[in-house]
Amino acid sequence: MTGNSFGQLFRITNFGESHGKAIGIVIDGCPPMLELGAKDIQKFLDRRAPGQSEVTTQRQEPDKVEIISGVFSGKTTGTPICMIIFNKDFKPADYREISQAFRPSHSDFTYQKKYGIRDPSGGGRSSARMTAGNVAAGAVAFKLLNQRFKTEITAYVKRVKDIVADINPGNVSQKDVESSIVRCPDKNAAKAMIELIESAKNSGDSVGGVIECVIKNVPAGLGDPIFDKLEADLAKAMLSINATKGFEIGSGFEGIKMFGSEHNDTFIIKNKKIATKTNHSGGIQGGISNGMPIIFRVAFKPTSTIQKKQQTVDIKGKSMKLAAKGRHDPCVLPRAVPIVESMAALVLCDHYLRQRAQCGDKFD
Amino acid sequence: MTGNSFGQLFRITNFGESHGKAIGIVIDGCPPMLELGAKDIQKFLDRRAPGQSEVTTQRQEPDKVEIISGVFSGKTTGTPICMIIFNKDFKPADYREISQAFRPSHSDFTYQKKYGIRDPSGGGRSSARMTAGNVAAGAVAFKLLNQRFKTEITAYVKRVKDIVADINPGNVSQKDVESSIVRCPDKNAAKAMIELIESAKNSGDSVGGVIECVIKNVPAGLGDPIFDKLEADLAKAMLSINATKGFEIGSGFEGIKMFGSEHNDTFIIKNKKIATKTNHSGGIQGGISNGMPIIFRVAFKPTSTIQKKQQTVDIKGKSMKLAAKGRHDPCVLPRAVPIVESMAALVLCDHYLRQRAQCGDKFD
Amino acid sequence: MTGNSFGQLFRITNFGESHGKAIGIVIDGCPPMLELGAKDIQKFLDRRAPGQSEVTTQRQEPDKVEIISGVFSGKTTGTPICMIIFNKDFKPADYREISQAFRPSHSDFTYQKKYGIRDPSGGGRSSARMTAGNVAAGAVAFKLLNQRFKTEITAYVKRVKDIVADINPGNVSQKDVESSIVRCPDKNAAKAMIELIESAKNSGDSVGGVIECVIKNVPAGLGDPIFDKLEADLAKAMLSINATKGFEIGSGFEGIKMFGSEHNDTFIIKNKKIATKTNHSGGIQGGISNGMPIIFRVAFKPTSTIQKKQQTVDIKGKSMKLAAKGRHDPCVLPRAVPIVESMAALVLCDHYLRQRAQCGDKFD
Amino acid sequence: MTGNSFGQLFRITNFGESHGKAIGIVIDGCPPMLELGAKDIQKFLDRRAPGQSEVTTQRQEPDKVEIISGVFSGKTTGTPICMIIFNKDFKPADYREISQAFRPSHSDFTYQKKYGIRDPSGGGRSSARMTAGNVAAGAVAFKLLNQRFKTEITAYVKRVKDIVADINPGNVSQKDVESSIVRCPDKNAAKAMIELIESAKNSGDSVGGVIECVIKNVPAGLGDPIFDKLEADLAKAMLSINATKGFEIGSGFEGIKMFGSEHNDTFIIKNKKIATKTNHSGGIQGGISNGMPIIFRVAFKPTSTIQKKQQTVDIKGKSMKLAAKGRHDPCVLPRAVPIVESMAALVLCDHYLRQRAQCGDKFD
Repeated sequence: MTGNSFGQLFRITNFGESHGKAIGIVIDGCPPMLELGAKDIQKFLDRRAPGQSEVTTQRQEPDKVEIISGVFSGKTTGTPICMIIFNKDFKPADYREISQAFRPSHSDFTYQKKYGIRDPSGGGRSSARMTAGNVAAGAVAFKLLNQRFKTEITAYVKRVKDIVADINPGNVSQKDVESSIVRCPDKNAAKAMIELIESAKNSGDSVGGVIECVIKNVPAGLGDPIFDKLEADLAKAMLSINATKGFEIGSGFEGIKMFGSEHNDTFIIKNKKIATKTNHSGGIQGGISNGMPIIFRVAFKPTSTIQKKQQTVDIKGKSMKLAAKGRHDPCVLPRAVPIVESMAALVLCDHYLRQRAQCGDKFD
Repeated sequence: MTGNSFGQLFRITNFGESHGKAIGIVIDGCPPMLELGAKDIQKFLDRRAPGQSEVTTQRQEPDKVEIISGVFSGKTTGTPICMIIFNKDFKPADYREISQAFRPSHSDFTYQKKYGIRDPSGGGRSSARMTAGNVAAGAVAFKLLNQRFKTEITAYVKRVKDIVADINPGNVSQKDVESSIVRCPDKNAAKAMIELIESAKNSGDSVGGVIECVIKNVPAGLGDPIFDKLEADLAKAMLSINATKGFEIGSGFEGIKMFGSEHNDTFIIKNKKIATKTNHSGGIQGGISNGMPIIFRVAFKPTSTIQKKQQTVDIKGKSMKLAAKGRHDPCVLPRAVPIVESMAALVLCDHYLRQRAQCGDKFD
Repeated sequence: MTGNSFGQLFRITNFGESHGKAIGIVIDGCPPMLELGAKDIQKFLDRRAPGQSEVTTQRQEPDKVEIISGVFSGKTTGTPICMIIFNKDFKPADYREISQAFRPSHSDFTYQKKYGIRDPSGGGRSSARMTAGNVAAGAVAFKLLNQRFKTEITAYVKRVKDIVADINPGNVSQKDVESSIVRCPDKNAAKAMIELIESAKNSGDSVGGVIECVIKNVPAGLGDPIFDKLEADLAKAMLSINATKGFEIGSGFEGIKMFGSEHNDTFIIKNKKIATKTNHSGGIQGGISNGMPIIFRVAFKPTSTIQKKQQTVDIKGKSMKLAAKGRHDPCVLPRAVPIVESMAALVLCDHYLRQRAQCGDKFD
Repeated sequence: MTGNSFGQLFRITNFGESHGKAIGIVIDGCPPMLELGAKDIQKFLDRRAPGQSEVTTQRQEPDKVEIISGVFSGKTTGTPICMIIFNKDFKPADYREISQAFRPSHSDFTYQKKYGIRDPSGGGRSSARMTAGNVAAGAVAFKLLNQRFKTEITAYVKRVKDIVADINPGNVSQKDVESSIVRCPDKNAAKAMIELIESAKNSGDSVGGVIECVIKNVPAGLGDPIFDKLEADLAKAMLSINATKGFEIGSGFEGIKMFGSEHNDTFIIKNKKIATKTNHSGGIQGGISNGMPIIFRVAFKPTSTIQKKQQTVDIKGKSMKLAAKGRHDPCVLPRAVPIVESMAALVLCDHYLRQRAQCGDKFD
């Protein structure tokens, strides 16, 4: 009830602090008999890990995951799966100053107001490093969905500051995404994005952007009416990711420019199944998946931690100037791509189990 | 667990169908000793009710709320507050056809796939009429917040299709909003919006837009890290409203155009308290309110129900043409304003009680 | 979160006050396509209703249930089922005195301490009348279980004060139970119980006892390890019933007299299936049903409301004497039998859906 | 949702297997600023640890707890507290046989039916060793309650098989309990219990008994009406402990022998506060604490694991004989005393935070 758990039936609980002993996750509700090993998890974590390329932070955290429980003889047993990443690259000196300062647009001030205490090392609990546990859990959720429905989840960087990539969500492949260090499958845009990020980094500044995510092979029937609409749970999942400022599904904010007669997705018969001609709905109608691809976009603000000197106040309310000293991402988007995918997998997997509970396991 | 409840500690459960016997809501967790009467609720409901003006549906549903339980001698007792609206304006004939058809961009198809059965009258459970219960609950949440913190929640129509209003969120008043039938406090824009809506209506079409919401006097410290960030819960609440396609907080999708050094909100001392110079964060940092006004925007698609004839398929997969026969809103935004406010009140109230549980009742 | 909901996936929310406008229940999570009508519910309610016989209260509450939502064309739709009983037999005069007094062993004092306010009419929210909603929900849960597994749930009065009935749980039938106004299928014991209850009633006093419940045709595999063990959830369900003071499963408190070698249930093969020779486990091992009959017992204290004059204090802490004036049950057990059955049905049904969510719908 | 979490606001999630890498617990919702160190936890764990005396198992598991997260500079931060016990004394050979057999009155059979897979080493997930994590969490809950209300929780062995101790719950001290290896403060009874346990052990058998628990300095107002009555949550907590078969509060099953006029607890004024003359209610009325001591009892069956040869069937349904080979407790009660106390602390602490959420932090 204090925000550290997510999901109802495929439920994860996140613990740890950025520079504490360890960070980790407990999954409760994973079905038994799913083949699972550390390498299933590690390949997701490696895409989120720091130090991948020149456009991400140079920090080196190996982020080696250990499965502590819930797996026996290479299979899940239906009991809680605890996964832990023990911390290695701990540099407390970098953070001494910020324990006394409120970094602009960070959570130092709000944690202090809320709890009266906070662990400042590496941003403590508020660090984006906390998402590693979620990515580990997302890897398990994805494996379950992929095995059951051949579900594919592909996110990519659609935009960095003013540079907008030209990507057809219908035929983007994860291989194309991964072949680019900025995780943008439009090669020209990717090149411009990399130059922009490096330029921002060199001037001690940062940039933001948009990640788009497309999910194929989602069975119709996932999502619950009224409050737990599939897009509502996706919106929550995405807005829970550090640095996000917006979410839109299907036609999103742009769809406003259309009349209803243009925007409505006409039902047609395609391959003997009911489908829609257009997909302004983004694969969800009335909160429930309709079998079409789910498409959504997430806005990320420019990274708050910058090396330029900034005005702020300290913990006693005194004015001061502050410049980040650690190694930080000038643009969080390339590393956020697997986070977006993982959170989407968690939402879908949870709703799959919910649908199975209420309506049985018949999908087509 | 099937999407009909919302909130953890100020928890609501929604029931009913659009044209069934009644629709209603149960609030569980409301603190005792709050003065509450049906008129506190009714004034919120009246703003959502159909038949208010020429830009909304002409249907007449009095939407008279009855408090069934949880109030004794004009005060809440701490036990569940059940509120019911009994249905009056029931016209089954209007809906006979749609029980056999899948209306484009409606939930007829997805409900059928999910449950194998659906109540078609008036859209049954998927009707926007279901939000009336939420508005009733939001009225109670708002009263609690307003009494405790003088919290003010003001939503308004910021945009209809291409018409964008010029509104300063810092000094918009609910009176100005309510003086316009389209609930847009920019008079010129309001006039243009009304004309556009009427023109769409006359051609059997519909339009969408953006509602902006500003919340003042929110104490710092509300919201829970990691998953239940305040903006994540607001995003979920907003995306749970019928016809919404997007959510953004503070700088939102536009903030992407800035560098980090421009976007960061510098901390300053104002009236002897810590505040931020700009508010690109939209009043929330690290998932927790910082005491600045909360500002967010919600995108609504053009209404799906239109009177123009549209292509679709019927329940047996046969092609057919369909035109809405009932009385519908050519633009849902004016009536959605109190829904946005109510859902925001529910989120804040829930996090207020959660903060009180974990950290006590000290706010400044 | 304030105790008015029960169950995770077949989740009920109870509302109302004894002498308010109505009492009711919302079921969230009921699978769709279950045939359901008011008469399925009413027959359970009639067994709980007051005024059935001379051993129960003479109050006449028709307790007529109305299904408000969630059923269309005689079938559940998967949306919330709200059921309401509107109150008729309302005699406020009976309760004027107790609004100022703390009745011994009642909840007047604790409600006042907890909430600072309470609805005194008919005991308000703390009245056993609140269980009517739970019985209505239990009737739905039972129908689902019975349809899917032919599950039979039979509770009966095993003991009243010193009179212990001699009943073989292996072949007791609901018909035998219902043929006795005290709901005890041992005719001799039943006769003695009736005499004892009438004698207690005549002297303005009350008696308690034990209800035993046997559940047949429970599939193996229901119940969740660690905290939500099937017996733990049954214990909670039973101790939530008004006037209960104890719960035991299988061998219970008596089993303590045995050595482990006597108490252990040897596994054998019976009808080609694995069974146990004895059933000291009461059908549950390690928190999970093993396919044998579930057997448990619940202790009910003598009714607190008696017509004998008792010493107490009033709301201002002044000593006073008090005698109940309304019409009350001298022994709650006969009417509690369907409550025990209903709560058991709710627990089993919830765990059935939970098992289906995690492990699929294969049972044998 | 699969039984591995307990509590709503002071919520724990248990993970691990008896002979896996580690066992552990995550506490979510602990208030910030509570002084906490590993030694606060360790002293509770040491009382549960094996190898304490000749009446418990001779296995030596140091059960050294590590606090992984949620504590900074010796104080809780309001974020999840993860505590882990890494496993040391792992003897897989002892358990090879049981992976193929269903031990009588164990959960081997039911786990296999439920999940289709189970971790057999040391009983895997179903081992009583899983309670260590709960005891660690209970130590934190207890510290919070004791600091806020001076709450004292004292459990002790009331009975072993036919030997019933004579103990006055009003003045039993934890020191007296701890001075006895069987944790029974009645010296004569303790001596007889020890002899009985050793005799059972020598004949390869086991015994059960009753633990009584008395809780002083509980504020009035804890507990939630209808389903989450304080006694209902205590019942669930106790029946979730391995080997328990029954729970009773206050007068319990014995109270049935009284008339209502004898059983009712008369309200009186004591030390200027409202109290009750007797305490048949066991400190709880209408599901809410009344400020009197809470007294309850829990029945434990004789340990299922015995060294006598027993008849059973194997995983293929073939008859076989089985005798436990490891080192086991001939009577679980002495080590279960801190488990009972911990689970009680967790229930009370959760309801304290729930009361604070709904009604504020005013107690007297």
